[in-house]
Amino acid sequence: MAAAVAGEEVTNRQVILKRYVTGCPMVEDMEVVTGTLRLAVPPGSPAVLVKNLYLSCDPYMRTRMTRHAVPSFVPDYVPGKVLDNCGVSKVVLSGHPDFKPGDLLWGVTGWEEYTLIPNPVFCHMINHREFPLSYYTGVLGVPGLTAYAGLFEVAKAKKGECVFVSAAAGAVGQIVGQLAKLTGCYVVGSAGSDQKVNLLKTKFGFNDAFNYKKELDLNAALKRCFPHGIDVYFENVGGAMLDAVLHNMRHRGRVAVCGQVSQYNLEWPDGVDPFRLVGNHIRMEGFLVSDYLGEYHRFEEEMARYLNEGKVVCVEDVAEGIEAAPAALVGLFAGRNVGKQVVAVARE
Amino acid sequence: MAAAVAGEEVTNRQVILKRYVTGCPMVEDMEVVTGTLRLAVPPGSPAVLVKNLYLSCDPYMRTRMTRHAVPSFVPDYVPGKVLDNCGVSKVVLSGHPDFKPGDLLWGVTGWEEYTLIPNPVFCHMINHREFPLSYYTGVLGVPGLTAYAGLFEVAKAKKGECVFVSAAAGAVGQIVGQLAKLTGCYVVGSAGSDQKVNLLKTKFGFNDAFNYKKELDLNAALKRCFPHGIDVYFENVGGAMLDAVLHNMRHRGRVAVCGQVSQYNLEWPDGVDPFRLVGNHIRMEGFLVSDYLGEYHRFEEEMARYLNEGKVVCVEDVAEGIEAAPAALVGLFAGRNVGKQVVAVARE
Repeated sequence: MAAAVAGEEVTNRQVILKRYVTGCPMVEDMEVVTGTLRLAVPPGSPAVLVKNLYLSCDPYMRTRMTRHAVPSFVPDYVPGKVLDNCGVSKVVLSGHPDFKPGDLLWGVTGWEEYTLIPNPVFCHMINHREFPLSYYTGVLGVPGLTAYAGLFEVAKAKKGECVFVSAAAGAVGQIVGQLAKLTGCYVVGSAGSDQKVNLLKTKFGFNDAFNYKKELDLNAALKRCFPHGIDVYFENVGGAMLDAVLHNMRHRGRVAVCGQVSQYNLEWPDGVDPFRLVGNHIRMEGFLVSDYLGEYHRFEEEMARYLNEGKVVCVEDVAEGIEAAPAALVGLFAGRNVGKQVVAVARE
Repeated sequence: MAAAVAGEEVTNRQVILKRYVTGCPMVEDMEVVTGTLRLAVPPGSPAVLVKNLYLSCDPYMRTRMTRHAVPSFVPDYVPGKVLDNCGVSKVVLSGHPDFKPGDLLWGVTGWEEYTLIPNPVFCHMINHREFPLSYYTGVLGVPGLTAYAGLFEVAKAKKGECVFVSAAAGAVGQIVGQLAKLTGCYVVGSAGSDQKVNLLKTKFGFNDAFNYKKELDLNAALKRCFPHGIDVYFENVGGAMLDAVLHNMRHRGRVAVCGQVSQYNLEWPDGVDPFRLVGNHIRMEGFLVSDYLGEYHRFEEEMARYLNEGKVVCVEDVAEGIEAAPAALVGLFAGRNVGKQVVAVARE
């Protein structure tokens, strides 16, 4: 594509929410529409107009597809409007002193080809160009920081501890496991296919892993992997797995509640009996990565070093083109992605 | 009663569990039987033989009346055997170098008139004789230490924070509220009768209190009392109250899970959706007082000072005689007790 020119009107394909979702999201709950956008930023505003390169698909987006009576921690998506989430973008036009055309950013953007970001408060310069840009939707972006903050700040994992990670081949889980290994923990992960289990054991260096779909008894699987119990559980799934984990926690175990991917499509999510936390003095703590953005630069440098040294690797599942975005998002809930699910909207 | 004489055989009334309990415990699930006991300690053993003066009735005892497939944090009671729990006792005979006849102890003992304690590892000398001995089943015993550890060590309540306590007129709740007030917190409690609510506001100095049985909407009641939300919830009840509290927690709020009195009689306790912890970064932490016994002496001195200075007061509900023990225990679940429920087996 030719370089965009200020004032030019471009076509802008967008993924909009078609209707609020009940149960499992379907491709038909979204629609890819083609509109136009004039390449301009309002005079005097701090807006930036970006061309989107990579969009991140994250399970939490499902929670935004339902209308909440009480506001959730992120705004619900609105039928007829474009979705938004983190992505990697290139600045086309800028009214903001920190950004100029050609800059590469990661941050919140629209699920569309071009986005006018009125106030780029959650846009960050991409500092490490030696890696694929898409890493800034994963290992060097929100999922990486989520893994880092959840493991060290929330769960306070320490050398020698036993760490369990669910959805371990996913964007967050694969990083959690590798960071825990680097810390000197014994690390086991669960995933939903033999292929993913194989990745955990070979590519990501987990001590052990199991395919939860093939285990008749999750409690027994955990007892097999952790005969002396679990110190830290990095919780991505909820439901029966969380229940089984709580039966296998050690005294003063910690559960960092990051996500609940098995539960987002349920009208009545599974609950946990709080009394289960009492006998072994278990701490269960929810967190949002937004609390830890202040640590991003420290994290970015540390993670870039690990990547350069080959101490952390990552696996991405890249869907090509914005038309592929709805299916890529929906696929997360069937576990179709292998690794971090990203949509390549355009190459730089 | 005349002083007990070594070698003498005495009658010994005991409260035994008659059958494992399902649902709400009834007086008929227990039985008061009369046996005999020879006043003696096995030669060479560290045993102490004590005369029981006060027995503590605690809601957690209900959890011991059900047979657990997987061992719980305390052993299940056994049908046909005497119950045990904390109490205040006087040493009759001792094979242990730390204790001599006439010493007053608090610690784990039987629900009976005399108990042979084979190894008095959980027996403590009573240091503050200026208070009623029964205080060592409450404000100066396990409930007091539970309140202290839960509020400061687990929930980490700080000056200026908003603290909510359920079952607030109970043995633990009344101390939690007063300690939180002494720390400079804004404190609200819930209880199950207007009489108890009145106690909270007048005798215990809570900022506010409500009768949960008279509130049509617990969420609305909490919003009324905490328009800016709750920083610390000292959780004694579970169920609908916990659910409503989780809707009203502030960012980085803490829930110290001490008990779940509304849930012990349910076969399928109410669960909490773990995702509820995520949006506001809520920490929910269970604990057992046994983790904090090392802090007992520091606590005892601090609490004795508060009591002497009139900064903490306590309300006890004393049932007279061991025959009254089963009804006193069962009464906890109907909220019949006003304040700490204790059974006076014998006066010193």
